[in-house]
Amino acid sequence: MTREGRAVVTGGAGFIGAALVSALLHDGVPVAVVDRAPWQDAVRLHGLAGAGELTYHAADMRDIEQLEPLFSGTTHVYHLSANTENRSDRAGRTADFTDTVGGTIALLEALREAPRPVNVVMTSSQLVYGPVPEGTTVAEGSGLLRPTTRFAAGKAAAEAFLEAYANECGLQAAVGRLSNVVGPGMGRGIIADLVRRLHDDPGEIRLLGDGRQTRSYLHVRDCVAALRAVAAAAESDGGDFSVFHVCNQDAISAHRVAEIVAEEFPDGTPEITYEGGRQGWRGDIPSLLIRPEALEEHGWRPRSTSEEAVRETARALLATRRPTTGAR
Amino acid sequence: MTREGRAVVTGGAGFIGAALVSALLHDGVPVAVVDRAPWQDAVRLHGLAGAGELTYHAADMRDIEQLEPLFSGTTHVYHLSANTENRSDRAGRTADFTDTVGGTIALLEALREAPRPVNVVMTSSQLVYGPVPEGTTVAEGSGLLRPTTRFAAGKAAAEAFLEAYANECGLQAAVGRLSNVVGPGMGRGIIADLVRRLHDDPGEIRLLGDGRQTRSYLHVRDCVAALRAVAAAAESDGGDFSVFHVCNQDAISAHRVAEIVAEEFPDGTPEITYEGGRQGWRGDIPSLLIRPEALEEHGWRPRSTSEEAVRETARALLATRRPTTGAR
Repeated sequence: MTREGRAVVTGGAGFIGAALVSALLHDGVPVAVVDRAPWQDAVRLHGLAGAGELTYHAADMRDIEQLEPLFSGTTHVYHLSANTENRSDRAGRTADFTDTVGGTIALLEALREAPRPVNVVMTSSQLVYGPVPEGTTVAEGSGLLRPTTRFAAGKAAAEAFLEAYANECGLQAAVGRLSNVVGPGMGRGIIADLVRRLHDDPGEIRLLGDGRQTRSYLHVRDCVAALRAVAAAAESDGGDFSVFHVCNQDAISAHRVAEIVAEEFPDGTPEITYEGGRQGWRGDIPSLLIRPEALEEHGWRPRSTSEEAVRETARALLATRRPTTGAR
Repeated sequence: MTREGRAVVTGGAGFIGAALVSALLHDGVPVAVVDRAPWQDAVRLHGLAGAGELTYHAADMRDIEQLEPLFSGTTHVYHLSANTENRSDRAGRTADFTDTVGGTIALLEALREAPRPVNVVMTSSQLVYGPVPEGTTVAEGSGLLRPTTRFAAGKAAAEAFLEAYANECGLQAAVGRLSNVVGPGMGRGIIADLVRRLHDDPGEIRLLGDGRQTRSYLHVRDCVAALRAVAAAAESDGGDFSVFHVCNQDAISAHRVAEIVAEEFPDGTPEITYEGGRQGWRGDIPSLLIRPEALEEHGWRPRSTSEEAVRETARALLATRRPTTGAR
């Protein structure tokens, strides 16, 4: 394994990024965070300032010149910076192009002259596969990419450029295609949405779609361990580019997620209702089953099941978001 | 089939683009060309000014606002504008991102508000497949994309966004993955390179690699017919996104291409020599065999074999490039 020098984490102020930074610092790895947020907004990192050797660089991830000076002495780059909003009606019109792909291009250009070896792990998404036939489980390296949202297209595009630069510029690169990653402190996704709706109307949890959309939910703690396992696995496998699924070993339906949120809700017994339709929204995918086979082969195992990860997240979000003046 | 209204051809001043514009005008289709070249540099189109209803728009293909006004009354868009240089040492550092992907994003954004139906045919490349095992033939819809050059990554990325926009914004879209397209008037590629070298040294044709790199060569006349067949096939198949191989039914080696150029050389019998190595250059692919199965199912057939296409091209380039003051 490459001597573990400094790690650079792009998007290190985000939900997964900050958890990764915390784990690296805890293990004594010096970390440089690059994020577009100014330090005062990087609240997830504020408690880590004394936990180890942490430097913070507020930078425009799309600007090669801002990134170029940041990689001296770096052996590992965890590239998490990207548009994170799958719904194009919520993301900026071209955020997947400018931020997801543009940020990746700028990073890869900035790394061209950096000392080797450099190990780059980029987070991608299970959504690059698009809709797959009911009952299919997709394996790493065999799944055709059929991106049906701009978010997924941005991830597929960033993967394509990462593979090309790895081959043309001598990087060791790996992609982690993430399933739903959850945990205390997350601000978006189905659990946060359901919790918000419950506080608007404590009698009802309304689900988009028919509730049968099935997903793997991975605890952010397990995700962080998986991303570090991806770096190690890519190194031990050799080769300039490899793909890993970063997901749980099981999966649960949106209906079950709603049930868990309802069970954890301390102020009543909300009814679960459905807006109907097979898809949650245009571009959503009814069912997608990926398994973390490549990481399992390298000995990685998640500590929490999908249900446990969702429950811990729901409990934390319900506790945080409960109005302090509410009746209880 | 959608009533054939106006066609917009992006990159219409280029080698394939101008041939497509000529064919469309010949069939009475009004054509608007969008190209970054100013009209005076669009020499391939100058002879077509009186051949039909042709309008020319010199525009920055990456600027949504410049493109938005151009699609009124348009039923067909042929999107050929892109970086066309596969060798990253010759193309701009980020041309594949800014021009290939950025131009596609701007086009798709500009098309969001255009009247439907709009049929978009985009040219991509066989190189999106990357290296495939010796003897494999890749079929449409089954081949994994493994782009090993930034050029190929740009094409794969543009395809991903085209598929996503088609699904999210209601376009009918198709991709034509092109093999080597050749013909009189082309300025780059292996035949033009060999002709240039022959004029430098009439005694020798020096090939990169070992000469065994095998490719399908398609005459530009057949390519143009294929792109129009792609538009018709995508319409008759329905669906919002489909992929077609635009290539010949056969393939020949680089060695055979050199032999044909030597046979057509009027001023001697050059010796064919090799620089050695299995690859022509870093990122080149030793052997790649795709077949135009989807188009064959729709009745399309090329008129020229690979050998005939190469021979006609070599003859034309040798005639054009022969120094007028040279000994003969």
